[in-house]
Amino acid sequence: MTSPNNTRELGNELDIKLDAQGLFTVVTVDADTNQVLMVAFMNREALAKTMETGKATYWSRSRNKFWVKGEESGHVQQVREILVDCDQDALVLKVHQQGVACHNGYRSCFYRRVAGSPRTGSSVALEFIAKPEIDPKAVYKH
Amino acid sequence: MTSPNNTRELGNELDIKLDAQGLFTVVTVDADTNQVLMVAFMNREALAKTMETGKATYWSRSRNKFWVKGEESGHVQQVREILVDCDQDALVLKVHQQGVACHNGYRSCFYRRVAGSPRTGSSVALEFIAKPEIDPKAVYKH
Repeated sequence: MTSPNNTRELGNELDIKLDAQGLFTVVTVDADTNQVLMVAFMNREALAKTMETGKATYWSRSRNKFWVKGEESGHVQQVREILVDCDQDALVLKVHQQGVACHNGYRSCFYRRVAGSPRTGSSVALEFIAKPEIDPKAVYKH
Repeated sequence: MTSPNNTRELGNELDIKLDAQGLFTVVTVDADTNQVLMVAFMNREALAKTMETGKATYWSRSRNKFWVKGEESGHVQQVREILVDCDQDALVLKVHQQGVACHNGYRSCFYRRVAGSPRTGSSVALEFIAKPEIDPKAVYKH
């Protein structure tokens, strides 16, 4: 229990392990059903903003800036609880999702399941397991 | 619907987006309860092995090799369903977990919640929300 790894894994202090870009993985789930809504990234500042505001705030790797989820669409995520994993390189955010999590209009970004098998040698088929709940065009005007 | 992004996001063919290391994020959840058990990585070959064997097989970044979950401990993950997200850079694996997912003996790697606030200015406290179900020393002999 005295090595740094054991302190990080079995201690009671937040000590997040960042990747080379200063980021860590965040899995956002519905606080009531545990359904995985999305996977995204945060840096330390995004986590601090999330904890201060109670609204999920990520780091957008594509836009290279903070991303307050729902800022444009109104589909904010109110954070109920934050869990951290054993080696502290990933968080689970348990949220109340206003509207939908996915920019394609689905409640969860995980709206397709792998239906095929790689053994067929050709492409692997996906099957839709959900329907869009909103028309994304009606939400994102820009 | 004709751009490559739209095909990847709204099409019915698996077309995983790899990171610079050839990996993608995998969130493994209990198929019955949706509880997040762990977050790990796969490459294409690990996914092919997972689909062929029905047992979750990851890529270990620390050991730089395939990692058949439970190979040593017996705590294998039988895969029930695989979901993919909108931009296809993350998978959700719905599994039946034999024993426990975490090498520290907890059912889930997410056995602590963030209890403190960054506003205090000092360290952020974690609170244990689960108890180990097995003694890890009894499982990992090596």
